This record gives sequence, structure tokens and C-alpha cells, in this order.
Amino acid sequence: MDKLTLHEYSASGNCYKIRLTAALLGIRMERVEYDIMEGETRTPEFLTHINPLGRIPVLQVGARFLPESNAACFFLADGSELVPADRFRRADMLRWMFFEQYHHEPNVATLRFWLTMIGTDALSEVQRSQIPAKRLAGEAALQQMDDHLSLLDWMVGDRVSLADIALYAYTHVADEGGFDLALYPAVQAWIARVEALPRFVAMEA
Amino acid sequence: MDKLTLHEYSASGNCYKIRLTAALLGIRMERVEYDIMEGETRTPEFLTHINPLGRIPVLQVGARFLPESNAACFFLADGSELVPADRFRRADMLRWMFFEQYHHEPNVATLRFWLTMIGTDALSEVQRSQIPAKRLAGEAALQQMDDHLSLLDWMVGDRVSLADIALYAYTHVADEGGFDLALYPAVQAWIARVEALPRFVAMEA
Repeated sequence: MDKLTLHEYSASGNCYKIRLTAALLGIRMERVEYDIMEGETRTPEFLTHINPLGRIPVLQVGARFLPESNAACFFLADGSELVPADRFRRADMLRWMFFEQYHHEPNVATLRFWLTMIGTDALSEVQRSQIPAKRLAGEAALQQMDDHLSLLDWMVGDRVSLADIALYAYTHVADEGGFDLALYPAVQAWIARVEALPRFVAMEA
Repeated sequence: MDKLTLHEYSASGNCYKIRLTAALLGIRMERVEYDIMEGETRTPEFLTHINPLGRIPVLQVGARFLPESNAACFFLADGSELVPADRFRRADMLRWMFFEQYHHEPNVATLRFWLTMIGTDALSEVQRSQIPAKRLAGEAALQQMDDHLSLLDWMVGDRVSLADIALYAYTHVADEGGFDLALYPAVQAWIARVEALPRFVAMEA
């Protein structure tokens, strides 16, 4: 495989997903850190060569660049045991990864970013006005996961897949966005299962 | 393959993506229509049996149900010429499909829904306060596509893939959300290429 370099901000759950996927598969990556709070992903250099959207993570594969966290996880895991061999389950894995980006991340991750990393006092009026809707939508996403995981050990089928990794990244730190994980016992048991996986690495590692 | 049934609201671009994928591949599906404006996807029957999130589209495969439009497209096209055989390109296709759900649909599709289908007068204060940010983010997504398509005929590689289908669905009706497609000439040329594909079907078909 071409040399792999992860362009990242390591406190981001979206970046952590990729590190966790690589760790579980025993894949080595270089890591390059950017401080998004200091605008380091908005420089002309970054926008021209790495990602015109000015966002991390970006997985560099040789001389090619792959933005979007879940696409990078898919690239690393394609053909491995983290992607189901069954056609329906493979699509169902993607279903939960799209769910993660549409229903979970914009609420659970954004509230963590706003409340813990930016700080309530520094939010704009428009951001502040969206907090109640994001709170409700984030709780709905967590409840949806809890309902699902009260019937199954893993998000798809009978073993861990990228759907679990994608959802674990921001779920296990949801309390930093003001969500109470004690309300979701099946999610808590699943978090413990993810953390018991061989070669698991923590977000801070 | 198991019998396929699309549970849908046919004016939704997310539902159209799946119909267009099936048409390009010559796959037959039954269609069941729900009027989302009348709450037909929020009935206990729908929530229990079809999708607990109360959302369409859902692709039914035999007795199994697959929500999330891009996951349903992937299920239909998995192994076909609409999914690149090359590993990097396959992930890059997913990159644009995640881009579509994160950066494009919540802005371009949501403004179409708010302005054309709900109507400005019926919007809540919180919705109204989000219009300027969604306008800017939608324009940025269209500009990103235009920059990309000024260099390439298709979103990924040298032929049509699911990335084009996913992005075409709401891009070609972006004017209904108040976006001016004349500002994006490479996007306009690409729209014409999609519409010239053999077996192409229009949204209204």
C-alpha cells in the first residue's frame, strides 16, 4: 500500500475514527497535527494541497488526498473483517455511517465542540438559537442507538464493523456535549465492548 | 435478488437517487408512496415496521429494511460499473457521498424544502434564522463541485459513479431553493452529461 499520512486535529472524533480503524487493523500511519482553533487548516497551503474545504481529517494515500472521515475509514478497512462480506450487511454498515454523519455528528459532536471547545459565552446568537434543536436531535440519535443495541451486541450483524467505530468516536464523549449517557444503558454496554476489542486505542493515545 | 420495494415520497431528491440508480442499472423495484406533508411516515405502523426514525426513503429487500438514501444506492450498485473497482476511487466515491449528506443536502435540499414545499411564511423563527448560514454553505458546496468539475467530467475518475447520482439529485433542482445554477457553469455541463446517460429517468418519471 502507498504511504499513509493522517492530517488531523487529534481531539476531533472524526480524526480518531481513522486512528481507531488503523489500530484495529494493525495499519501504520504517519500523523500530522493542525490546530483548527488557530486556523491552521485555512492556510492557502492547506486549501490548495490538502483539502479545499479547509477541514480535517484528510487521509493522504501516497500523493492522493481523501477527505471525509468515514470514507477514509472505508479505504483502510475495504476487504477486511471490519466490512461485512454480505451485501445487505455491507450496505447496512454504510446506512449507520450515513446516520452518524447526518443525525449524530451534527448534534452530538457539534454540541461538544460548541460547549467544551468554543465555550457558551463565545457562541453567536444563531449558534445559541440552535442548541435546543440540536439537543433534541442528539438525544433522538442516542435513543435510536440504544433501542438498536438493546437487541444486538453490534450495530450490524454479529461482530464489530466500521459502523461501530464511526459511532463510538463521538458517542463515548457525548457527556462533553451535555448528554447523559446513563440514560442509554445499551449504549454504555456497547461502549465497554468496543473498548475491550484487541488492539483498541483510546482517543488520547 | 430478493424482491425490492422503495418506500418513498417521490418529490424527495433522496428517494429519486435510488430510482435513478435502479434505472441506470435496469433493476426493477416496486414503489410505495407516502405523503410526508400529511405525516404518513410518522404512523405507529411505519415507525414499527419500516423506519423508527420516521423518514423516507427506505429500501425494502425481501423482509429487511434499509434506510439512508446513499446506503440504498450502494446496495443496488454494489459490484456494478457504478462503483469503481479501484480501492482509492471506491473510497473517493464515498467521500463525495458523505460530502453530499453533510455539506450539500442539509443546505441545498433543506432550503428547497423550506422555501418551496413548506413556504417562507410557515417557517419557525429558528428555521428562519438559519437561512443565511444555509445559503452560504449551500453556495460553498456548489462552488466546490464547480471547481472539481471544471477539471473532470465526473466526480470520481473518468466515468459516472454513485457520487454523480447522489449529487445530481438535489443539484439539478437547486434553483427551487433559491440557488442560481448559472453561477456554476461546470456543474451545468455535468448536469447535461448525467441527463444524457443511457436509461436516465427524470425526477418526475
